[in-house]
Amino acid sequence: MDGVQAAIVGTGYGSVELIRLLTRHPRVKEIRVFTHSREGEALEEIYPHLEGILDVTLEPFAPERVTDAGDVVFFGTPAGVSGALAPSLLEAGLRVIDLSGDFRLRDGARYETWYGRPSAPKRWLDQAVYGLAEIARDEVRKARLVANPGCYPTAALLALYPLVQAQAVDLDTLVLDGKSGVSGAGRGVSLGVHFSEVNENVKAYKVGVHQHIPEIEQAVEGWAGRPVSLVFVPHLVPMTRGILMTVYARWIGGAVPDTEGLLELYRRQYADAPFIRVLPAGRQPATKGVYGTNFVDLGVAFDGRTKTVIVTAAIDNLVKGAAGQAVQNMNVMFGWAETLGLLDVPLFP
Amino acid sequence: MDGVQAAIVGTGYGSVELIRLLTRHPRVKEIRVFTHSREGEALEEIYPHLEGILDVTLEPFAPERVTDAGDVVFFGTPAGVSGALAPSLLEAGLRVIDLSGDFRLRDGARYETWYGRPSAPKRWLDQAVYGLAEIARDEVRKARLVANPGCYPTAALLALYPLVQAQAVDLDTLVLDGKSGVSGAGRGVSLGVHFSEVNENVKAYKVGVHQHIPEIEQAVEGWAGRPVSLVFVPHLVPMTRGILMTVYARWIGGAVPDTEGLLELYRRQYADAPFIRVLPAGRQPATKGVYGTNFVDLGVAFDGRTKTVIVTAAIDNLVKGAAGQAVQNMNVMFGWAETLGLLDVPLFP
Amino acid sequence: MDGVQAAIVGTGYGSVELIRLLTRHPRVKEIRVFTHSREGEALEEIYPHLEGILDVTLEPFAPERVTDAGDVVFFGTPAGVSGALAPSLLEAGLRVIDLSGDFRLRDGARYETWYGRPSAPKRWLDQAVYGLAEIARDEVRKARLVANPGCYPTAALLALYPLVQAQAVDLDTLVLDGKSGVSGAGRGVSLGVHFSEVNENVKAYKVGVHQHIPEIEQAVEGWAGRPVSLVFVPHLVPMTRGILMTVYARWIGGAVPDTEGLLELYRRQYADAPFIRVLPAGRQPATKGVYGTNFVDLGVAFDGRTKTVIVTAAIDNLVKGAAGQAVQNMNVMFGWAETLGLLDVPLFP
Amino acid sequence: MDGVQAAIVGTGYGSVELIRLLTRHPRVKEIRVFTHSREGEALEEIYPHLEGILDVTLEPFAPERVTDAGDVVFFGTPAGVSGALAPSLLEAGLRVIDLSGDFRLRDGARYETWYGRPSAPKRWLDQAVYGLAEIARDEVRKARLVANPGCYPTAALLALYPLVQAQAVDLDTLVLDGKSGVSGAGRGVSLGVHFSEVNENVKAYKVGVHQHIPEIEQAVEGWAGRPVSLVFVPHLVPMTRGILMTVYARWIGGAVPDTEGLLELYRRQYADAPFIRVLPAGRQPATKGVYGTNFVDLGVAFDGRTKTVIVTAAIDNLVKGAAGQAVQNMNVMFGWAETLGLLDVPLFP
Repeated sequence: MDGVQAAIVGTGYGSVELIRLLTRHPRVKEIRVFTHSREGEALEEIYPHLEGILDVTLEPFAPERVTDAGDVVFFGTPAGVSGALAPSLLEAGLRVIDLSGDFRLRDGARYETWYGRPSAPKRWLDQAVYGLAEIARDEVRKARLVANPGCYPTAALLALYPLVQAQAVDLDTLVLDGKSGVSGAGRGVSLGVHFSEVNENVKAYKVGVHQHIPEIEQAVEGWAGRPVSLVFVPHLVPMTRGILMTVYARWIGGAVPDTEGLLELYRRQYADAPFIRVLPAGRQPATKGVYGTNFVDLGVAFDGRTKTVIVTAAIDNLVKGAAGQAVQNMNVMFGWAETLGLLDVPLFP
Repeated sequence: MDGVQAAIVGTGYGSVELIRLLTRHPRVKEIRVFTHSREGEALEEIYPHLEGILDVTLEPFAPERVTDAGDVVFFGTPAGVSGALAPSLLEAGLRVIDLSGDFRLRDGARYETWYGRPSAPKRWLDQAVYGLAEIARDEVRKARLVANPGCYPTAALLALYPLVQAQAVDLDTLVLDGKSGVSGAGRGVSLGVHFSEVNENVKAYKVGVHQHIPEIEQAVEGWAGRPVSLVFVPHLVPMTRGILMTVYARWIGGAVPDTEGLLELYRRQYADAPFIRVLPAGRQPATKGVYGTNFVDLGVAFDGRTKTVIVTAAIDNLVKGAAGQAVQNMNVMFGWAETLGLLDVPLFP
Repeated sequence: MDGVQAAIVGTGYGSVELIRLLTRHPRVKEIRVFTHSREGEALEEIYPHLEGILDVTLEPFAPERVTDAGDVVFFGTPAGVSGALAPSLLEAGLRVIDLSGDFRLRDGARYETWYGRPSAPKRWLDQAVYGLAEIARDEVRKARLVANPGCYPTAALLALYPLVQAQAVDLDTLVLDGKSGVSGAGRGVSLGVHFSEVNENVKAYKVGVHQHIPEIEQAVEGWAGRPVSLVFVPHLVPMTRGILMTVYARWIGGAVPDTEGLLELYRRQYADAPFIRVLPAGRQPATKGVYGTNFVDLGVAFDGRTKTVIVTAAIDNLVKGAAGQAVQNMNVMFGWAETLGLLDVPLFP
Repeated sequence: MDGVQAAIVGTGYGSVELIRLLTRHPRVKEIRVFTHSREGEALEEIYPHLEGILDVTLEPFAPERVTDAGDVVFFGTPAGVSGALAPSLLEAGLRVIDLSGDFRLRDGARYETWYGRPSAPKRWLDQAVYGLAEIARDEVRKARLVANPGCYPTAALLALYPLVQAQAVDLDTLVLDGKSGVSGAGRGVSLGVHFSEVNENVKAYKVGVHQHIPEIEQAVEGWAGRPVSLVFVPHLVPMTRGILMTVYARWIGGAVPDTEGLLELYRRQYADAPFIRVLPAGRQPATKGVYGTNFVDLGVAFDGRTKTVIVTAAIDNLVKGAAGQAVQNMNVMFGWAETLGLLDVPLFP
């Protein structure tokens, strides 16, 4: 069969979602999974739902094994891992798609400030392409190393982009309020993900210090050509999957728009983006509406009383916010149809 | 026994929560429940969890019956009901605590704009006291008619008050992002509260048109002495009880504060408020932390990068956001201890 | 394109799940949806998550329109509808797969007892094949009319079959305890599916009177060649999808088995059943392990102390318990691979 | 103030629920909390919802400190702790109520088989009273050491007792199917309680080996005067609180009863039990109906087709299944009203 070999490093939720998507991807002929701690185990021991579906034994991570395994390597690892390990794989000619934050911030100092650890080598930070294909499709196409965007930034940036492009909103008073399901916290165990503590509960966390703040700011700065500081507060809600991002932006774009005019702006901007669905006026996106898919549902409203544009974006944090977007980037990098293996109908209800 | 007779009109979630709280209130000696549609039914037919606890038969609403029944009447009715029915009870000398929105907006025209129906008579709107006891304890004490605040406004206003009092934030760029459990939508059946459609789902609703917007603005305007337009977007989250309100306010108060300074402001303001818990720096309130109680948990943080105060307020929407606050107001109106019958330990987990 | 035209009657959860599965089925070239009450509406008005995915306008049900529309018709309708409407379609040469209970009970009197309404015509009851393909693949292959099994019976019968075949358990003391997610109750609104009443709640319902009881008994009787009365109690649990069926059967099969021996019995029985996964000893199936898929996960244990075989079966009630099994039956009826369009990886977490 | 001093050992969910109940108990004047690992911490650091409510610093466990602290000691500790520590406290004259399983099985060998560890000293096993007050009120009244029943056994035994007393059912084919919320697994962190793995999921666990099996059997044996082996399978359901136990028992009691006759049997048996609510015919108990309370709701049905009595029992696993029952036992031991401090209205919805 004609196709690529894919290597996955890590066994967290992002990796297992990659496995789900790559298993049925028509151009992926083999999947191997690498780990630092569980080598020799069968994948289905760790993820019983894979029983009988994928006969994969976890392999110990070693650069030469991975080089051997793949045309493309996906890192679904904690901060600090891909920054150290990806370079040798890149040098060996593999393409790398990194689901962690290690290559997202172009400025190493910024990374060190927000992540509290040394950044990846500057040489590779320079080469990394921030993989928001809807906006940077051409760069992704030529990339060897793609920094797959974070879950919150994916929702926030796709909600913001048309407004920033149109120079229509005040970049100094942006407020982003994110609501995420619990799977965003990963598979590690802690009181913070204990069912009895999380169920029937909503709370904010990492107020003012979440590492996705500089990632969002960097992108907006790139579009606007000037420094931007914005407010982002993430919240944990009692569900497994999904992010809803609510963006509040003050209109400064001259003639005051109506909602329909704003929708037209969004539709035009995303006319070629197969995963973005700009909802009709008056409809609000729901995370359940994109469940298990790579869709980004956008709701746009203009609050005339306060001259505020209110954009809501719903994604599945594990698909468009992680593994699905990684596959989308792979598709673009390899010159395949952007939607290959990704055109699912949302699981509803 | 020495005590008052309480009448409740309506059988929704607010009413049944009132029943829970009044049943064990040391100064309430009798509870009668009135309805427009289910007279003659036993309460436990409608609410089986009350089996054997409270032997109450629903009575048809009629002013003279209610007058007969009570020293104080609680309205837990849809918009438009108490505005029409409360006046005759007030004239008969009863005290009225209205959990609906009918007496919350002092300006009848404003009510008609946001509620889309005729307002209560101006004479009674003028006499109604907005029952946020933490801020207007003295007015509540003297009131005959208390407009019990809405669930979102309760959280929003208690989060905002110290900042507005201190003239420390820009009232023209306030953003309020609310997250509510499903019980806030009431007991009526619809697709919007169907478990299969709400579970694993977050969405915004009534963007820019929620009737709690003018209620919040009216209070802030009263404190600030000038018109205020603010942004508020409510969201539905998959849990039964609880509201988390996240307030974003730009600092304009001169010397830039630190979080500890802000906390001190809040602690001072609420030193005499028995239900408000200002959490230590770095702690964020969780709706589960106030489950089943009248507490308001406040988290205060200052985001120096954007000069934004971020206040989060957690309440139980059915207690402090409805029935509990109503009982608190009754306590104040009757000159009893404000906390009487309300000092519960949150149900956790 | 070479393929069949599929017609779906009804717009409930079973139908929308059919749409999800048929949309990407490689042999289905067109899908049309018929309704009795919402003709003219776009499908995405009723199911916003389908926005932009499937451009279908609901058509009024009329036999000739449906005949025109399809090679195969799926009924996802309430009791009583397909029994009346399917015959004319069958006579027109269409194949019919009925997701309702109208053709499941061969004995019309039994149907009338349990469903409280007239049964379908005897002639068609006689021709209907009970579509549990794992057990009756050959009959399904030749069928024109397939009665798609109910959700609970699917789980119960696949758990029971090897034991009954082996004549190993006492058919007079069978106990079946079912736990279902809320989507099993359909999309109709009622207090019984109100999030605030269902969340944090488990209860039994229809004790002793559930219409799936005769369906299960009929099948077991067919295998055993004698009358059987068994106990089945369904329970509602606070989740959207999934059924876990726990089967308790007393061993009377001579030499007392061990769990491994029982597992071997199951593995042998289902060696050719691509959707059945018999889990290794000591592992228990979880509904989340089959989420969104047509798998049936079986856990088998022998409790030596009580000589009881305990079999647990997990299915997704909307897939293997409804739409997925219907597609599986379509595959078998048309001579395609049984798994065509159905080999998904479970959505996890 | 006149009242007792209560000491609590342990800081798990059972202990924090005890704190909730004892804080407002009219006869408890002081609460002290002991721990083996977190001494010196404020209780509200571990349980932030207690902020400002209870100013308790955790004390290191030492027998003399505990003796000093209390009239009554509650153990909310893992298996093996109270068995070792309670004896010296008993010898010092304190009353002990043990929420763990250490004193529940009278036969040390049985404990060692099911718990896999040495049992408590025989002398104290002999003195321990199994604290199901509805059935053994007099023994509890005289007890110095009460073994507080397990959560599943509480529900199972109260459902079974009237049937066993009436010698009406076959004790050799009893089937008990339990469904529990996640808080029953305690506060320890693991994948098994991770929200993302537990939500939208039901599964059986510890099939045939759960340590509550011998506890249930021992009680039934005591009532029946002969050995009993029964089947019990526990299931985990995605909610925080609540147990629903479904009991299946074959009728052998002569004249076949109807449901009303059975209900009468239950009502008579529990006429003096203030926490037991026998629901009217046709009503099924729901865990939400007893949320946060010490009630036991019983639903009784007779399935004439299979001659099976089906009893369902709903309790709050942390109240009647743990802390509430412990307080009930304290009330009985001290000669107070059995319901003192326990007559709450269920939190609904």
